[in-house]
Amino acid sequence: MTYCVGLLLGDGIVCLSDTRTNAGVDNIATFRKTYRFERPGEQVMTIMAAGSLSVTQTTLARLTEAAEDPEAGPDRSIFATASMLEAAELVGRTLAEVTHEVTDRTDVGAQSAATTLILAGQKAGRALRLFLIYPQGNFIEATEDTPYLQIGEHKYGKPILDRVIRPDTSLRDAETAVLLSMDSTVRSNLSVGLPLDLTVIERDALRITRARRIEAEDADFEAMSRAWSAALRDAFTQIAALPGD
Amino acid sequence: MTYCVGLLLGDGIVCLSDTRTNAGVDNIATFRKTYRFERPGEQVMTIMAAGSLSVTQTTLARLTEAAEDPEAGPDRSIFATASMLEAAELVGRTLAEVTHEVTDRTDVGAQSAATTLILAGQKAGRALRLFLIYPQGNFIEATEDTPYLQIGEHKYGKPILDRVIRPDTSLRDAETAVLLSMDSTVRSNLSVGLPLDLTVIERDALRITRARRIEAEDADFEAMSRAWSAALRDAFTQIAALPGD
Repeated sequence: MTYCVGLLLGDGIVCLSDTRTNAGVDNIATFRKTYRFERPGEQVMTIMAAGSLSVTQTTLARLTEAAEDPEAGPDRSIFATASMLEAAELVGRTLAEVTHEVTDRTDVGAQSAATTLILAGQKAGRALRLFLIYPQGNFIEATEDTPYLQIGEHKYGKPILDRVIRPDTSLRDAETAVLLSMDSTVRSNLSVGLPLDLTVIERDALRITRARRIEAEDADFEAMSRAWSAALRDAFTQIAALPGD
Repeated sequence: MTYCVGLLLGDGIVCLSDTRTNAGVDNIATFRKTYRFERPGEQVMTIMAAGSLSVTQTTLARLTEAAEDPEAGPDRSIFATASMLEAAELVGRTLAEVTHEVTDRTDVGAQSAATTLILAGQKAGRALRLFLIYPQGNFIEATEDTPYLQIGEHKYGKPILDRVIRPDTSLRDAETAVLLSMDSTVRSNLSVGLPLDLTVIERDALRITRARRIEAEDADFEAMSRAWSAALRDAFTQIAALPGD
């Protein structure tokens, strides 16, 4: 499994993904699930993926190859699309095609080929947008009411986001919130694990403003994780029990 | 859906269940999912259920009817069983039978009839035990290494338990922990809702030592929920962000 989360805030976008993949519990590996597309000053996009690794890699390979092809038009290259909406449609179409091919070829059910993507980004002069793209290629978009989107093992890390994230949360706080959301998930579910890939895109910067890989032994992240555990236990001791009978 | 959690601690057992049932999001109702069996001074048991309401009710109706029948032997009455292990086997057998009948009769897949139970209790002179019983009737048991068992929507409320619960946690703290675990679940998932049913069985008391229904407008629980939200946000503000680039 996987856990990826994207936040759409007033100041920009914060995305975080883990890197664990597993085919059964005895076949665990590390694969990057964050892909970045950047033409600084012109446009910037990032895609995160949860689900079938083969569908993910084929989809992203096609998108990357087309994005690098100067001849490719807006029907193939996400750089050539005019807006994030068009980019979401292209990514959704590519994902649905690959899902269809893999399902047909391998005789696996649609379930086990299911892959969900998060697409975030901005093109010059256009809005910063954050989409969640379903295996069938349709998508939903983050709004002020629901400024975050999650894919994969989303439940463990949802309570902290529900309590902390507002559209006006600063990018630094948002970064901490997604890291704590990931920390809760990693602690409670073996199928999600470090390293992590963090991506921050400031509004109107038109480039990746922060890209950080957090390795398993990252001292800063370990300190954050320990501090959060201690703070949670402290918080817990402050809570009065219900009155006795 | 549902969320039920049971803790097996040095001092006793703490169980909490919600009461929300839903058949689709437009058919929501309140049903008790905690059932208590008590012969004070002799034996005490509680069962919680997550899954198909019809399977749950039929299973519990059979167990209750047999428990009230003074003629019923250990093959039917959980009061007549000699140990908690025998009780777990009887409950598992009854659950598997009913699941089988419902699946056969209604042509629904085994998936939608699936019901999981938590059974906790103690018989005079025997150990206090906590079981999770699967739809097929087999079961697992809580141990010192893993002192809690959850059924239903278990993911949202797992991080707090993972961080706070130890076998030597006091019953009062354990009660607070399961209520906060439930609070996180209720906030993040519509299919889990108040009222809640709390059951505490002190070790060797051989009776329900605390049974409390927490209604939707329970002022104590609301205060606890608000205090926890505030404490979490406070805790969050103490966490230092990762250093910038």
